[in-house]
Amino acid sequence: MGSLDFPALKKLFRNDRFAEFIGAEVVAGGGGMGKARLEIHTHHLNGLGIVQGGAVFTLADLAFAVACNSHGNKAVGLNASINWLRPGLTGVLQAEAREVSCTRRIATYEVLVTDDAGELLATFHGTAYRKDEQWDLN
Amino acid sequence: MGSLDFPALKKLFRNDRFAEFIGAEVVAGGGGMGKARLEIHTHHLNGLGIVQGGAVFTLADLAFAVACNSHGNKAVGLNASINWLRPGLTGVLQAEAREVSCTRRIATYEVLVTDDAGELLATFHGTAYRKDEQWDLN
Amino acid sequence: MGSLDFPALKKLFRNDRFAEFIGAEVVAGGGGMGKARLEIHTHHLNGLGIVQGGAVFTLADLAFAVACNSHGNKAVGLNASINWLRPGLTGVLQAEAREVSCTRRIATYEVLVTDDAGELLATFHGTAYRKDEQWDLN
Amino acid sequence: MGSLDFPALKKLFRNDRFAEFIGAEVVAGGGGMGKARLEIHTHHLNGLGIVQGGAVFTLADLAFAVACNSHGNKAVGLNASINWLRPGLTGVLQAEAREVSCTRRIATYEVLVTDDAGELLATFHGTAYRKDEQWDLN
Repeated sequence: MGSLDFPALKKLFRNDRFAEFIGAEVVAGGGGMGKARLEIHTHHLNGLGIVQGGAVFTLADLAFAVACNSHGNKAVGLNASINWLRPGLTGVLQAEAREVSCTRRIATYEVLVTDDAGELLATFHGTAYRKDEQWDLN
Repeated sequence: MGSLDFPALKKLFRNDRFAEFIGAEVVAGGGGMGKARLEIHTHHLNGLGIVQGGAVFTLADLAFAVACNSHGNKAVGLNASINWLRPGLTGVLQAEAREVSCTRRIATYEVLVTDDAGELLATFHGTAYRKDEQWDLN
Repeated sequence: MGSLDFPALKKLFRNDRFAEFIGAEVVAGGGGMGKARLEIHTHHLNGLGIVQGGAVFTLADLAFAVACNSHGNKAVGLNASINWLRPGLTGVLQAEAREVSCTRRIATYEVLVTDDAGELLATFHGTAYRKDEQWDLN
Repeated sequence: MGSLDFPALKKLFRNDRFAEFIGAEVVAGGGGMGKARLEIHTHHLNGLGIVQGGAVFTLADLAFAVACNSHGNKAVGLNASINWLRPGLTGVLQAEAREVSCTRRIATYEVLVTDDAGELLATFHGTAYRKDEQWDLN
């Protein structure tokens, strides 16, 4: 039944138990855009004392999932790539996804992950397949 | 001081708190190879009831990290890509990394993620930068 | 009307003018597989005197295109990535594509590019979208 | 001996015989940026009558090469990915590379390929390794 606004997306992603488990939170979404945040705790770190690459990826992937589901169609990730540019250390990480292209079946997104100082920590690019099936949130 | 065998790699990755937090475990490693496993629990699932894409990535990334650090040099991931081929549902996921190429500075790896039935769920390709600095595990 | 065998694929790719222009040639194909070759000439080199990265990519992409169209459906590339591992210098380069996964809409392929000595020069991974429309070669 | 300006980059890439062979031309460069253009002719097309994927890649890769060599260090591509978003048909294609990150050894770039109407045809992301060795253009 058409696009999902932020409250609808927030409700939808409340069921993402892995995101919840690691502490990643949806903070904005709609119109092909999605934002998520992760407050860094010691359980997000790797053996070098920096945020683990998989934690950064999962945060970016959440923003991507919000963005690609925001048009109302169920969307699944086909593939994604990440470039780790700088280590995440402390504070809160933000991931912001924007739509690069969207056709009937295929949509692509760029996600930027930044820290509290606004430094770019990682870039992520994801491609989603859009099903005909619509989300029904009632 | 040269290559790390499996006990040394296991000891090294005991400090990866994010891997431990999500329940991913190193089960083999050495000579450019790495294996990790993840027993699926409900907290690994997304809103569709399948293993979340970030959880699959994190498992693959752990196998990659073991493989690229197995030569003894400290290695950091530059970038990685993942193709999600089939959903993970139940049981135990396995990720196995093998070395595709290794020069003095740059090494590349392929990781295959499979389920209990041996079905291929995801392919992952990672590129690492190898520092001169060696791991000192004493 | 179903799968394409090698003669049919060879006929189909005779119309790929860019492949022909650079001298890349389809040498095998069928059942999700594709092979292409490129004899290196000076016009394939870059300023460093090695085979240009785009020439290596184009060769791999041709093998990918053969493989993903071999089931008879028209297939279009969505995305691809390449890792350049070693420089190509002289002789003939071979690219061999194998199918990693194939669903109704999406298929993924790995392509290995090797030289005369069998050395691996590049790895390529491509994802294709499969249309319902079938090739009609009559 | 330091950064290369556009005339120096133009001179440097005059030796890229594959770029010249396919008709791709460097039109701007310097300070981590690079631009290239390709006037479409029939020999750039594939069997579907659209610009072949390898031709689009080669154009983007040229802009990437200009950008990553513009600081004066010799730089080599480690890996790159491309998303084909829309077919190229006629006229002139432009590729513009901008630097996303640059450390002593590793730099990453985004390249956008557009057509005469300003439509985005492809996105490209490349990672380069920067050697200590400097270009000497005398």
